[in-house]
Amino acid sequence: MSEILHLIEFQMSFLLFIALAGYLAASRINQSAVIGEILVGLLVGPSVLGLITYTDFVSSLAHLGAVFLLFVVGMEFRFEDIAKPRYFLIAAAGVVLPWGMGFGTAALFSFPFGGSMFIATALTATSIAITANVLKEMGRLDTEVARAIIGAAVIDDVLGLLVLAVSNGLVTGSFSLLSAGAIFGKAVLFLVIGAVVGLYGIRPLLRVIDGTAFTRRYPEVTFIFATMIAFLYGMAAELLGLSSIVGAFIAGASLGGMRLRHGKDLHQGAEYLQVIFASVFFVSLGILADVRALQAHVLVFLAVLTLVAFASKLIGSGGMALLTRSTLRDSAIIGFGMSPRGEVAMIVALIGLDSGLIDQQVFVSIILMSLLTTIAAPFLLRRLMSSRPA
Amino acid sequence: MSEILHLIEFQMSFLLFIALAGYLAASRINQSAVIGEILVGLLVGPSVLGLITYTDFVSSLAHLGAVFLLFVVGMEFRFEDIAKPRYFLIAAAGVVLPWGMGFGTAALFSFPFGGSMFIATALTATSIAITANVLKEMGRLDTEVARAIIGAAVIDDVLGLLVLAVSNGLVTGSFSLLSAGAIFGKAVLFLVIGAVVGLYGIRPLLRVIDGTAFTRRYPEVTFIFATMIAFLYGMAAELLGLSSIVGAFIAGASLGGMRLRHGKDLHQGAEYLQVIFASVFFVSLGILADVRALQAHVLVFLAVLTLVAFASKLIGSGGMALLTRSTLRDSAIIGFGMSPRGEVAMIVALIGLDSGLIDQQVFVSIILMSLLTTIAAPFLLRRLMSSRPA
Repeated sequence: MSEILHLIEFQMSFLLFIALAGYLAASRINQSAVIGEILVGLLVGPSVLGLITYTDFVSSLAHLGAVFLLFVVGMEFRFEDIAKPRYFLIAAAGVVLPWGMGFGTAALFSFPFGGSMFIATALTATSIAITANVLKEMGRLDTEVARAIIGAAVIDDVLGLLVLAVSNGLVTGSFSLLSAGAIFGKAVLFLVIGAVVGLYGIRPLLRVIDGTAFTRRYPEVTFIFATMIAFLYGMAAELLGLSSIVGAFIAGASLGGMRLRHGKDLHQGAEYLQVIFASVFFVSLGILADVRALQAHVLVFLAVLTLVAFASKLIGSGGMALLTRSTLRDSAIIGFGMSPRGEVAMIVALIGLDSGLIDQQVFVSIILMSLLTTIAAPFLLRRLMSSRPA
Repeated sequence: MSEILHLIEFQMSFLLFIALAGYLAASRINQSAVIGEILVGLLVGPSVLGLITYTDFVSSLAHLGAVFLLFVVGMEFRFEDIAKPRYFLIAAAGVVLPWGMGFGTAALFSFPFGGSMFIATALTATSIAITANVLKEMGRLDTEVARAIIGAAVIDDVLGLLVLAVSNGLVTGSFSLLSAGAIFGKAVLFLVIGAVVGLYGIRPLLRVIDGTAFTRRYPEVTFIFATMIAFLYGMAAELLGLSSIVGAFIAGASLGGMRLRHGKDLHQGAEYLQVIFASVFFVSLGILADVRALQAHVLVFLAVLTLVAFASKLIGSGGMALLTRSTLRDSAIIGFGMSPRGEVAMIVALIGLDSGLIDQQVFVSIILMSLLTTIAAPFLLRRLMSSRPA
């Protein structure tokens, strides 16, 4: 008991120390804090120094961090903006093309059918956490490009998990159009019902709670209520086989921009939670990727996979953005903005590894591809955006 | 993996739901939110409904909550106030008398020497978390009585852990005056060095960091830094065999009342963290106590133990307060304010159970005594304080 308690304090202070070192590193190379946090995480993790490992505790905190982060991103997002057909087109092209190009690449390297399915599926993922943070840091969350990226990425998350379910079904032989349709239906239903319940049920309810003498006496209850809703939505998303961060995002979008009378400010509170726990999340991404497992002959595959990862999102999502009236530069921003595979591809890789369909080498390759797209995207985004008229 | 992730969302939303139910219950019976949270925690925990158990995840979050809570309490505390000799006298009397009366009670019930030592040690503990929260809720943190209670309780925590170390040493036969002196010396040194380093090292350093362009660019770094310090102090306390919350308290006291130029507000941020995680902490106390293990014949012992718990702190700490110029009512407030044994006694009981010196029945008795003092104290405190001229 005493040993565990001790460990918690050590891990928390050390993770926050790494995060601060990451901020400093980011400041030195004039990049997003996220890059610094992942790089310093990589340095102190098993890959190089081995000072800290990806424990259950780190994993839990990182998970909380991802939820808080998407809750805040959701709050800063206008709900009606993700319902544009254009985002669906960008998202769909950003799933179909990476899947096809990924499957082709895997086949080229003579991977078996099951493994190729998982490599392809990992390429469809989009991790909006990092791009959203870059956009937030640059004060660009309130632009059409940001809305397109985040809106399409949210849809992408749903589509990507649909592809995962379908791939899983095809590989294990239990695939049917009916079951694929059922999964798709559930996902769409969750988005629609989550939004309707959030905007027309929970938001007015929170307004009522805020006006009571109960909240005047305990101003923190509205914040506890809002945080509970974020996790409740996350849980609902998980139960439906979606990612919990989709739920947290929709919860945030439902409760964004509320000015409360008695209750503590929701956005401010969520931001403080995010500051601490999202830092842990980004550091943990660096810790999670242990590059020592990588053998020389896999490096070629890794290099090709990473290039395909960028090219397929750039041609898919970026190309579709260009076709739907975006400028060339905005299309490139959308393409690169949707390139980070982040923790989503890592979870897909983990499922593949657990089911024995991909081996340790492919697993590390997917992890590193995911990390490289995640690390490179903010560089490219910052370059593209800072050269762009504000 | 997906199962664990799912569990996190469920547990978080459920714990926050229980916390809200606790707030509502507290509001109904016009008591501190803490009581409501523990009672509803008891109701949904293994004792009654069995809807949630004390998992590692709940334990970790509760632990973070205790650290955040004491960090906030520390911030709202003036450092010089805990250095008064009077608090040492109140704390010492509140350790010696409960220990003696506890040992006598255990001997009366024919417990063996080792078990009696642990029962006596559990009675010396003081959990300031609950009392501090009641004082905070009633806006009384800034009174002499509150300073006496919290100051003495902080000293008590150190003295109590010294008694634990000494008891442990006596029971296992490795006791010597030299080792007892070494433990005592370390504890005093930690308090003094922690305070000096905090006030004259870390506080000015944070002031410097706050003034940099680095903080202007990333206003969250000062808050990350301060939170890191809270856990670093907690870790240092743990490493020295003290409770981490003592460290968090001293860290908070070192950084309290700072107005930052560029950085986010430390006190406000710590309060938001505390709102969510201290709620989990209080709910978890209710979940932790499984009353089903209690057999009928132990109830007499439990009743006597609880009465002795109150009487010994009231006569010890309250009596010493009366001797050192407090009014009768203030002395009663101090006596009852220091009565909650909280998680400190529970940890002592756990160590005794693990070492085989007390059995399951005594373990549950100590847990329940601790809970009863913890639940009853806020009732008594609120009654005493609301009848008192403001």
